[in-house]
Amino acid sequence: MPSFALLVEYDGAPFIGWQRQAAGLSIQQVLEDSAAHLNGGAPPTVTAAGRTDAGVHAEAQVVQVEIAADLPPERIRDALNFHTRPYPVTVLAAVRAAPGWSPRFSAIGRAYRYRILNRRSRPALDLGRVWHVTRRLDAGAMHEAAQALLGRHDFSAYRAASCQAKSPLRTLDRLDVARLAEDIVITAEARSFLHHQVRNLVGTLAEVGMGRRPASWPRAVLDGRDRARAGQTAPPEGLTLTGVRYDPPIDWG
Amino acid sequence: MPSFALLVEYDGAPFIGWQRQAAGLSIQQVLEDSAAHLNGGAPPTVTAAGRTDAGVHAEAQVVQVEIAADLPPERIRDALNFHTRPYPVTVLAAVRAAPGWSPRFSAIGRAYRYRILNRRSRPALDLGRVWHVTRRLDAGAMHEAAQALLGRHDFSAYRAASCQAKSPLRTLDRLDVARLAEDIVITAEARSFLHHQVRNLVGTLAEVGMGRRPASWPRAVLDGRDRARAGQTAPPEGLTLTGVRYDPPIDWG
Repeated sequence: MPSFALLVEYDGAPFIGWQRQAAGLSIQQVLEDSAAHLNGGAPPTVTAAGRTDAGVHAEAQVVQVEIAADLPPERIRDALNFHTRPYPVTVLAAVRAAPGWSPRFSAIGRAYRYRILNRRSRPALDLGRVWHVTRRLDAGAMHEAAQALLGRHDFSAYRAASCQAKSPLRTLDRLDVARLAEDIVITAEARSFLHHQVRNLVGTLAEVGMGRRPASWPRAVLDGRDRARAGQTAPPEGLTLTGVRYDPPIDWG
Repeated sequence: MPSFALLVEYDGAPFIGWQRQAAGLSIQQVLEDSAAHLNGGAPPTVTAAGRTDAGVHAEAQVVQVEIAADLPPERIRDALNFHTRPYPVTVLAAVRAAPGWSPRFSAIGRAYRYRILNRRSRPALDLGRVWHVTRRLDAGAMHEAAQALLGRHDFSAYRAASCQAKSPLRTLDRLDVARLAEDIVITAEARSFLHHQVRNLVGTLAEVGMGRRPASWPRAVLDGRDRARAGQTAPPEGLTLTGVRYDPPIDWG
C-alpha cells in the first residue's frame, strides 16, 4: 500500500493528546478516522514524530499513514482536510514516503517553542496558547541557566514518572530563552525529548526567572537526577511542536 | 465621579460586536456589567474609540468609564479583570482620564491590521483570526493598488449601507500590504474610518491580488463612489484594532 508522510498543524486544546485513548478524542483518532474514508472504511494506523500531550499544539507535526487509495499526494491532503474539517487539525502537505521510513524513528531532530505571557493581565487573544505568569521574569538569567543544560546528560530530573523511554540520556542541542515585549519565548531542540522534558525544563527555569533560585540551580537539579528537586511542570498550552528534521530532509513542495 | 481610560484586549469571536444589543452579548456589556461591581451595582456607560463589529478583535481598544469607587487605577484594572474573567476580555492598563476626555472624539488616529492566511489548507491554529484565501495573492499588486487610495477622499464606495457617519470624507494615511510567508498582512491607519471601510478595502484589494482586476481598479471604484462596484466585504475575523492615538499621548505606564 502507498505510504504517505504528512505535515500537520493542530490546536491541542480540544484533544486528550496525540495518542488514541478510550477516554476522549485524540488527534490520532481524527486523522485515522479521516483516512478511513480513503481506505475502504478501515481506519489505518497513523504514527507521529512526537506524541504531544493534551493541550500541546503543533505547527509542523510529521505523521505517516498507509492508504489503499493510490492518489496523488495533493489529493490525499485535500481529502483528509475535507474529513478533519469539524476539528482544528489541518494537513499542510503530503508526500509519498519511502519504504521503511518512520516519522518517529527516522527523525534526527525535534524543535519546540514554549511561550510565557509575562504580564499582569490575563490573556484574551492568546488564551490557551501561553502560560500566564504575572511575576516579572528575568529572561537573561533564565537563558544563562539554560546554557548549562546543553549537551548529553542523564535527564532523569526532568523526566515524567510516566516516561516510557528506555534511557534517560538525551542530548540537548538548544535551549534559548528570549524576551519579546510581554512574551518570554523558549526554544528547545534535540534529537528527541523525554516525556514532559521541555515542560519540566521551563517550569524549573521559571523559578530562576522569578528570582527564587540562582542561575546555577537548574544544572544542580540535573546533576541530582531527582525529579522531586526540579520545578513544576509548566502547563501544556504554552507548548508547540514547531518542526521535525530528517536526513535526507523532506521536500514538502 | 472619577473617570478612567482603559486599554482593552479582546477576542471578538464570541461577541455580537462592541456595542450593547438585545440580540446577544457584547464587549461593552461585559465591561459595563463588570464595572457595575465597582459602582454600587449600577452599570456605568462604557464608551470606546472604535465600535468594532461582531468577530473583530482588539489588541488595544481604548475605552472610558466613570466609576463611583475612587480607587487607584491599578486596582480598577485588576477588579475589572476579576469580573470579566469568564470572557476573553482583559484590561491591560488603566489611567485617570482628564475631564472632558473622550476615547472616541479625542482620538487623532486609529490603526487596524487585517490578516489573510493565503494557503491551500484551512487554518487550525489561526482559526477565527484570519480570512482564509486559497488562491495565490500578489501582495505587490495589492500594495500598489492601495497606494492610489491614500489621502483625503469621498469613500462612499467603501462604506457600509448602515454607516451612520455624517460625511463620507476620510483621510487614509496608510494602507500597506505585505506578504510574510503564508500571511498577507494589511495595515490601515487613519484619523477615523467609515463603517466596514477597512473590510471593504481588503475585499476589493483581494480582487487585485487574485488577478481578477488591475491594480488601477480600486482607485476607479473610489472615484465612482458606488458601493455596488467594489469587492466583497472581507470577513470580520481577519480584522484587529491594534492601536488608538491621542494628543497628548496616553502614558499607560
